[in-house]
This record gives sequence, structure tokens and C-alpha cells, in this order.
Amino acid sequence: MARLTSPRTIPEATVSRLPLYLRILVEVTEQGEKTVSSDRLAELSGVNAAKVRKDLSHLGSYGTRGVGYDVEILMLQISRELGLTSDWAVAIVGFGNLGHALANYRGFTERGFRIAALFDADPRKVGEEAAGLSVRHMSELKEVVRSEEISIAIIATPAAAAQEVADLLVEAGVKSILNFAPQLINAPNEVSIRKVDLSMELQILSYYLERTKVLDAARLVK
Amino acid sequence: MARLTSPRTIPEATVSRLPLYLRILVEVTEQGEKTVSSDRLAELSGVNAAKVRKDLSHLGSYGTRGVGYDVEILMLQISRELGLTSDWAVAIVGFGNLGHALANYRGFTERGFRIAALFDADPRKVGEEAAGLSVRHMSELKEVVRSEEISIAIIATPAAAAQEVADLLVEAGVKSILNFAPQLINAPNEVSIRKVDLSMELQILSYYLERTKVLDAARLVK
Repeated sequence: MARLTSPRTIPEATVSRLPLYLRILVEVTEQGEKTVSSDRLAELSGVNAAKVRKDLSHLGSYGTRGVGYDVEILMLQISRELGLTSDWAVAIVGFGNLGHALANYRGFTERGFRIAALFDADPRKVGEEAAGLSVRHMSELKEVVRSEEISIAIIATPAAAAQEVADLLVEAGVKSILNFAPQLINAPNEVSIRKVDLSMELQILSYYLERTKVLDAARLVK
Repeated sequence: MARLTSPRTIPEATVSRLPLYLRILVEVTEQGEKTVSSDRLAELSGVNAAKVRKDLSHLGSYGTRGVGYDVEILMLQISRELGLTSDWAVAIVGFGNLGHALANYRGFTERGFRIAALFDADPRKVGEEAAGLSVRHMSELKEVVRSEEISIAIIATPAAAAQEVADLLVEAGVKSILNFAPQLINAPNEVSIRKVDLSMELQILSYYLERTKVLDAARLVK
């Protein structure tokens, strides 16, 4: 019997790096490379090579000395482990500019996340269309979560509405929430919540800009 | 003389974790905590505690045995190191739903990233307003990058336009680019590029969903 994922548990820190490796592997294939070394993966991910090897060993992937990893096989192993070979139905709550942008975001469907429902609390937005779906009113949430077998909900509301929406989602039986609202939300332990902070990558750019500034200043002083 | 950042270089992997620590520290203060242990930071970040201590030691921050780190001081140290105490002028190129959402995203200004200009290639979008700014045409890019002293540009265009926009930004002298378009872009070495993949956090949620499914199935088999 084919098993989709291994029964062993992978450390949380490793899990959080798998999407990064996958993204890098996609870029590597786009450049026509068939194999990749742990050193190259380390360079591209900013994770040290020993840790890359350790992370991938959790997937049962060890690479070949002097050759590296087979890119295609490694992508498949990571995708399976991340459950990306399943089809997950996703609901987006909040149909402002962000919700609208997320509904049309190509990167979701490419990874097996199918947008299956859109919601807004504003009756004037109900019936608007994106991604082949009509926006529905929040009052239909519970029913639609069930009928569409929604696994993951994305909160794209203003900060002030985020907790109330999270409560409604939990009540409707959603077990995974991705929160784009700049607001901490609480939910019972059995619900997984991830928060997206769109400024995190900007902060990394800022570090390098700041260093350039300081180094330029240091050169002037010399 | 007060120095804004240390002259030493911090490992790239540590830099990429600093925004995560900062986000956690903000949440910790919101919950009224004044100190935080490396174990707690480890738990919240999914990084192991020894690595957290190593990362923070690069900032000259060692915490106090049995007490942990002073949250406020640690936030300041990280913010300085990341250059968040500087004011960075940011331009957004592409005023579709995503560009519009990013222009209004509160999380940027909170971190010292001031949206200073909006651009679109479509003349019909020129003059539209968001975040107190009018959208300008791409033909003004070079001039505005100079006059507004733009440090960072965000690409929020469709994939097909991303490389052309990146070339124009580089030509205009922009040294840091944050790419939201689902498209790999190339630029000279001296330009820092970070790519945002909005599906990465979804992939982490998917891992836990998949595990639950597998464990439930395993229980049924028993």
C-alpha cells in the first residue's frame, strides 16, 4: 500500500524550513538543474549545510556523495511530507484588496491549495466575483465550511474583526487558520494558527541596507 | 559616539531569523510579559534553544540566568541590528489588488517602512489614491526614485511584467527589491532581492493537517 507520509514526526523547525527548500528546488529546476548539493541548498536558503542534510534525512533523503540530491525526487518527497499532494479546500474571509489579491494568487493553486469559498461581512460585497467564485455572506460560513469540506481558512479582514472571525471559524469546525490581519488571535489548542507578517522579508532587506550604510560611513572615517 | 549597528557581520541564517524573534517579542509584550527565556523563545519560534541563544549572542545579548532576556531591550537591539530604527522609503510597483493592499498594510509603517511612491504601467490607474499617495506612471520611476530617495521597491505586478520592472528599478538605482510576483527575477549581484511566497505558511499548516489525517487513518487500522 502506498503511504502518503511517514508515520514519524519531524521536528517543528525542520517542518518550517521545508517550504523554503521546496521553493528553492522549484527555482533550481527552472534553471534546468537536475541535481543539487547540500552546499548549494545551504547557500540559497541561508541554512548551514549540515543542518540542510539533517533536515532532509528526516525525509529519508540522503543524496549521493559528489552528486547531491536528485531535484525531482526531493521535490516529490517534500511535497508529500507537506501534504501538498492532497487537495486542500481553502476559504478566504474578508474580501477587501488583500482578500481579492489572495483569491487570484496563482501560487496557491500551484501548491494544491484550492480556493473554494470567499466570505465578507459586508452585504454590498456579497455576489462580487473572483477566481470563479461569488463572495458569500458570513452568515453562510458554517454551512459552506461543511458542504465544501473547507480544511483551511485565511483571515484577510481588518485587525479589529480578526478575533471574531476566528471564533466563527472555530465554531464551524475549521482546524487550520492562516491569519493575515495584523492582530494576534486566540483559538483552542487543537486549532493550528499561522500568522503572516508581510514586513518580515522587508526587515531582512533592511538589515543589508543598514550594513551598507554603516560600512560606507566607516570607509569615510578611515 | 552612538553607533547604530555593530561592525561585525551576523550570519545570514541568523539575520533571517531576527524578524521572527522580533515578531514573537512584540506578541510577548502585548501579553504583558517583561522578560522572556530562551526556552520560551525557542518554543514560540520553532528554533532550538541553543540556537536562539547563539543567534542573540551575535547581538551582544546574553540574558540573565534564571530570568531570561529583558524583552524591551532585546526588541531594541534587534530593531537596531535590522536597521528598523532608520526610516526607509519604499516604492510599490503594480497597483492591482495586491499593490493596493500592500499600500494600506499597517505592518509596514509600524516597522519603519514608509510607503513613499506608487507606480503602475496602466495610464488608467495613474491618479488613483491609496495611503495618501497618487499612483504615478512608470515613466516617472527614475525621477521619483531619486527625489523621494527610495531605498526599497516592492514588485506587485503580474508575473509576466516582473523582470522588466526589476530592470527598470535597477536602472533607476534601487538596491533592494522585494518580489511578490510569482516569477523568478534576475538582477546584478549588488542588488538584494527577496522573494515572498504567500503559500509558504499554508504549506506548514498543510503538514499538520496531513499528519492528523494519517494518524486518524492509523488509528482506524489498529
